[in-house]
Amino acid sequence: MAKASKRPTILITNDDGITAPGIRSLVEAVKGLGDITVVAPDRAQSGMGHAVDKILHRKPDICLSGINHGANHSINVIYSGTMSAAMEAAIESIPSIGFSLLDYRFEADFAASRHYIRKIVEKAMSYKKEKHFLLNVNIPAVPQKEIKGVKVCKQAYAKYEEDFDERVDPQGKKYYWLTGEFVNFDKGKDTDVWALQHNYISVVPIQFDLTNYSLKKELEKNWKIK
Amino acid sequence: MAKASKRPTILITNDDGITAPGIRSLVEAVKGLGDITVVAPDRAQSGMGHAVDKILHRKPDICLSGINHGANHSINVIYSGTMSAAMEAAIESIPSIGFSLLDYRFEADFAASRHYIRKIVEKAMSYKKEKHFLLNVNIPAVPQKEIKGVKVCKQAYAKYEEDFDERVDPQGKKYYWLTGEFVNFDKGKDTDVWALQHNYISVVPIQFDLTNYSLKKELEKNWKIK
Repeated sequence: MAKASKRPTILITNDDGITAPGIRSLVEAVKGLGDITVVAPDRAQSGMGHAVDKILHRKPDICLSGINHGANHSINVIYSGTMSAAMEAAIESIPSIGFSLLDYRFEADFAASRHYIRKIVEKAMSYKKEKHFLLNVNIPAVPQKEIKGVKVCKQAYAKYEEDFDERVDPQGKKYYWLTGEFVNFDKGKDTDVWALQHNYISVVPIQFDLTNYSLKKELEKNWKIK
Repeated sequence: MAKASKRPTILITNDDGITAPGIRSLVEAVKGLGDITVVAPDRAQSGMGHAVDKILHRKPDICLSGINHGANHSINVIYSGTMSAAMEAAIESIPSIGFSLLDYRFEADFAASRHYIRKIVEKAMSYKKEKHFLLNVNIPAVPQKEIKGVKVCKQAYAKYEEDFDERVDPQGKKYYWLTGEFVNFDKGKDTDVWALQHNYISVVPIQFDLTNYSLKKELEKNWKIK
């Protein structure tokens, strides 16, 4: 009993529900690295992060969220249920990692994900982590042999550019078609979007302090409001 | 017509709905500073930020969100509908400010808010702003004469600490009562929580790039995963 309690505890969660293939692959990926507890909703839902921390009797050593079916790179991190569960854990000072595979399909192939997730989790568990350690990991949807490696990145400023295409129907009436394309405005090689486009697994360290410190400094100097 | 088009355009939105007193006070606060367009849901809803940018024919000069009934300081910025609408505008390169009054009541007194919001918006409109200019403004629920001023701050690491209080009922059975208190773990005088507790209006510059750059640097040096 005393011995067992020294084993690290791993909390696994997601927002897609317990039946999603992604969470099963995540459990398989880390099997043997510690005592695993899975806490997941019985169907897809978001914002469940707050619900998990009172179920365990001790604080887990690490929290893993995912594997999400679909990308959570660039600006999408702020809308992601997978990452918000991971962020809730990090706010509670539980080191945490969110995983996403760039494949929306239920029958997505998680083989490469399992291989690299195990390596990333092993690395994280053996690493002296800061209090609010939080990573956003995205995995390209290619066979394992095509993956070039793991790359630490920054969040790209990339997003959908929506537009309306004005068209005319056969009766001569105007109608509009909603169009959109995904545009990466960050041209450097240090972003998650670049890494994923070049078949790297992207690892973006994330923080929940949203303060823009450079603007803060500027306003402190220039804004005097009475 | 040409003259009119030179007036600044102000987009006002919220997530509490068009009937909330907060949004009416916001309109009153900035009346005369530009051409005002109000886009708000017919009832309370969140995540509507994406819906507003196609309604106007030109990009607004500034977007104002709120006034929220209740605090959006510290970590609450990440859960806030008011701030997510403002953030959507900032992502689209529209300078944006979210306003919240620390009073949940429908009959809250917005007099002090109107006075200071006008000053803050005037300041912002005359200021050369960075592309993704975004502010989170919280206003203490005190009469105008008690407000000490406007303070540029950082987001506090402050949050509810939830706990279960174990009790015994008259029949001798255990039951649990969910308790919680709001704790500010940041002890400095530079946080929004400190400012609000001392009757200052807090202004936190916000960014949507969540990259933790110091951890990124550290991992780039120490993490080699093959």
